[in-house]
Amino acid sequence: MKKLINAPENVVEEALAGMAAAHPHLLKIQFDPNFITRADAPVRGKVALLSGGGSGHEPMHGGFVGHGMLDAACPGAVFTSPTPDQILAATKAVDGGAGVLHIVKNYTGDVLNFEMAADLAKDEGVRVEAVIIDDDVAVQDSLYTAGRRGVGGTVLAEKICGGAAEAGLDLAAVAELCRGVNANVRSMGVALTPCTVPHAGKPSFTLGDDEIEFGVGIHGEPGRKRIKMEQADKIAEMLMEPILADLPFKSGDKALLFVNSLGGTPLVELYIIYRKAAEIAKAHGVEIVRSLVGPYITSLEMAGTSLSLLKLDEDMLRFWDAPVVTPALRWGG
Amino acid sequence: MKKLINAPENVVEEALAGMAAAHPHLLKIQFDPNFITRADAPVRGKVALLSGGGSGHEPMHGGFVGHGMLDAACPGAVFTSPTPDQILAATKAVDGGAGVLHIVKNYTGDVLNFEMAADLAKDEGVRVEAVIIDDDVAVQDSLYTAGRRGVGGTVLAEKICGGAAEAGLDLAAVAELCRGVNANVRSMGVALTPCTVPHAGKPSFTLGDDEIEFGVGIHGEPGRKRIKMEQADKIAEMLMEPILADLPFKSGDKALLFVNSLGGTPLVELYIIYRKAAEIAKAHGVEIVRSLVGPYITSLEMAGTSLSLLKLDEDMLRFWDAPVVTPALRWGG
Repeated sequence: MKKLINAPENVVEEALAGMAAAHPHLLKIQFDPNFITRADAPVRGKVALLSGGGSGHEPMHGGFVGHGMLDAACPGAVFTSPTPDQILAATKAVDGGAGVLHIVKNYTGDVLNFEMAADLAKDEGVRVEAVIIDDDVAVQDSLYTAGRRGVGGTVLAEKICGGAAEAGLDLAAVAELCRGVNANVRSMGVALTPCTVPHAGKPSFTLGDDEIEFGVGIHGEPGRKRIKMEQADKIAEMLMEPILADLPFKSGDKALLFVNSLGGTPLVELYIIYRKAAEIAKAHGVEIVRSLVGPYITSLEMAGTSLSLLKLDEDMLRFWDAPVVTPALRWGG
Repeated sequence: MKKLINAPENVVEEALAGMAAAHPHLLKIQFDPNFITRADAPVRGKVALLSGGGSGHEPMHGGFVGHGMLDAACPGAVFTSPTPDQILAATKAVDGGAGVLHIVKNYTGDVLNFEMAADLAKDEGVRVEAVIIDDDVAVQDSLYTAGRRGVGGTVLAEKICGGAAEAGLDLAAVAELCRGVNANVRSMGVALTPCTVPHAGKPSFTLGDDEIEFGVGIHGEPGRKRIKMEQADKIAEMLMEPILADLPFKSGDKALLFVNSLGGTPLVELYIIYRKAAEIAKAHGVEIVRSLVGPYITSLEMAGTSLSLLKLDEDMLRFWDAPVVTPALRWGG
């Protein structure tokens, strides 16, 4: 294992210290319990958005904290759910009186810990709503999940709901929008290589030189099947067809296409996938009107990609386009 | 070699087609010869900025085309200089009457081909100035270079000069600013793994499980020495000390610290490096007032990082902060 770390047990705290040093105008970082908030939190009268999950998926979620997106992120240990005390402390820190929306990826530990934190926060008088993201069409249940896993759709939900909260929508409306995003987004990924959790010191699974894991989870969970390596166009087809079949998208829909790197796959390959995925969408009559291409929800250094397709309505489009100023997504701010 | 490609000979063109599909509002892409321009090129009366180089370093340079940064980028084959006809065609396409600045990384092929293109463009009545970027302190001459290599400082020069051109500075002034950035920036990198050029099909060099290449070039060129793997803090020190010693930076300087991923190294590791590098700068009395953290000048999927430190004056700071709207860098636009 060659990684730019000092000691496995210090990875999360040292990375947080680096984020604090790099983005002092955008972020405030608290330790023990660990959480990240926007520098100007709490924002009075605005619904606050909070997400979190295991570390190792950066920039998700800490890189999405800032004006127009998240108010707080709670990073757990690598690939490990954040604890209820982290989530509770962050919830109280960002509540500006209009309540807090928890955006939770559907993994059993995350769901349980967010629920517990929400109950405790409510006991202390904070209004909390939670929305579970479960956009991965690959498998029904998985290693850490009952039901579908939450993956790339989370990034889109956080951006769109962040725009809505900034525009002044109330807690019920932002939660409803978040459920709408989740209902209209479908994702699937493929791994070309595994990744190594620092504490484990060795890859979480193994793949042959000519094998890929089709439908992989963001922690390396098994997907639909292990198959032989294919060309990019074929892989784009194999990811897009189940996505398009699942919703179902229909001719005339406007959509956002998100081609994500799982970490180790460079942009030149993502754009080759994008080209074919956009062609396939067009052949189905789906008009791609917005795009996101890059490493936004990663699995450490894992090579591979995931595709997410979100059917956009007018509100989602407007809030997607709204200004955002975070370390990882920044425009119009 | 597992890569998300179809055929090695189509990598660049298919990736360009993907960029065109993903960013229709920002970019126009021409084929044969290949070049990328801003969608609104040529911009009348504005100095145009053009850069280019081998593909495989994305987002550099194509991802930096847009308002506030480059007017055009010329992608060569992977790790191969763009040809004079590409550069000439792009130069003519973006000239808005105020001349064109070529920003050229110091590699022998790039320098020669940019010079030839500039001569041809001048013959056709286009005013061209060229600035060579050579910010890598690792080695004096290298595999493809006489003198120092051009690396991370290029990204900073393109952003700052793009802001200056947008603000209306003339060709001589933008070129002078670009030389000033180059004179005030120093960089150095380290590779943890090699990368594989698609055409070659195998890694460009080999590293043992406990070895790193200290001072590596962005094409995997040898650096200062091959050493045993070290902890992140030690690596940050080994990169920062030669950078700080070379300029020299002095107490009270304001600077921008850029921690770059060579491709395969995830954000969590970059922030661990950032934390220590910023501490070291502070111990030297250098005040880090701006940061850039992420994969901006890469070597395909190579794991590793490079650090760049730029001493900022008031103009550089102002143009760094100016709006930019490109696929890879986007703020305030």
